[in-house]
Amino acid sequence: MTIVSTEHRLSAEGFKHAFRLHPGGVAIVTADIGEGPKAMTVSSLFSVSIDPPTLVFSASAMSSSTPTILSADTVVVHMLSSSNIDLAKLCATSGSARFGDDVKWDRLPTGEPYYPGASSWIRGKVVNRVDVHGSVLIIVEALEVKPQEQDSDTHAEPLVYHSRNWFSLGETALVREKS
Amino acid sequence: MTIVSTEHRLSAEGFKHAFRLHPGGVAIVTADIGEGPKAMTVSSLFSVSIDPPTLVFSASAMSSSTPTILSADTVVVHMLSSSNIDLAKLCATSGSARFGDDVKWDRLPTGEPYYPGASSWIRGKVVNRVDVHGSVLIIVEALEVKPQEQDSDTHAEPLVYHSRNWFSLGETALVREKS
Repeated sequence: MTIVSTEHRLSAEGFKHAFRLHPGGVAIVTADIGEGPKAMTVSSLFSVSIDPPTLVFSASAMSSSTPTILSADTVVVHMLSSSNIDLAKLCATSGSARFGDDVKWDRLPTGEPYYPGASSWIRGKVVNRVDVHGSVLIIVEALEVKPQEQDSDTHAEPLVYHSRNWFSLGETALVREKS
Repeated sequence: MTIVSTEHRLSAEGFKHAFRLHPGGVAIVTADIGEGPKAMTVSSLFSVSIDPPTLVFSASAMSSSTPTILSADTVVVHMLSSSNIDLAKLCATSGSARFGDDVKWDRLPTGEPYYPGASSWIRGKVVNRVDVHGSVLIIVEALEVKPQEQDSDTHAEPLVYHSRNWFSLGETALVREKS
């Protein structure tokens, strides 16, 4: 009997190295299950269905906000632009005062905590949770979106996290087509 | 009895508008289930666990390659840099010859089709599939990564898709810290 080489598991280092090349848009998820507002920064958000409008993100076992996010019936998912970088860092820093006196936050009429300064947000209902080796994929059906202000954020530049750095997707980052 | 307003579903337009601000790194997934090589471009890839190394992406019901990807036991997930933009476009274009004579592709010793020119790739085993309203989340445990060449791609700039445009995450896109 021989060990089948294809069943060798990749090392954590090899995996991380391959993913160094893979950036993610930055989002913040907030929720409150009656124990106070919680928030976490994620770079694992994507849209998975338009009808009904559904998104997914991953909650790492390592975040202190994860137990709240996992138990919540509804969450607010904020999509961030580069002008929201301070908020992104705040909610990515262990032990930070994410709802402190100097942080602009509020509650929606439905009760969820949220950051009104985020360029966009979606309030949604958690419809499924999928455990993947301790992390959890959270599947959310969208119920409500940030009201659009006239001309607001038409030119907002999305915030991207990549290889421990923050990037802004402005004009200068556009790939020029070969002619 | 009144209709509870919070259960109103968000319109597809509102949802898409909110997600316009949310970019994604670009990847290509390839597989062959004995019916010839297939490939699709996705912007929904993220790493979900390091131990064991596990990733997830979403296969849209709208791609012609989805039936193959859904049935495959193993897939190759390619992380792309801006130098791979032609490949990204090829595999995102309906009806294109993704494995045509002028396309540089090969097979791994284990049989999967792949693009050796991609800046990085991971071969993995599909360990779970989660249906979300017709789209499918595919959860993949990593088995093997592209061998690292000396000094290769140390400075590769990831390719990002956002609001129907392609972006490159180079130095100029770095957010400068306030001092």
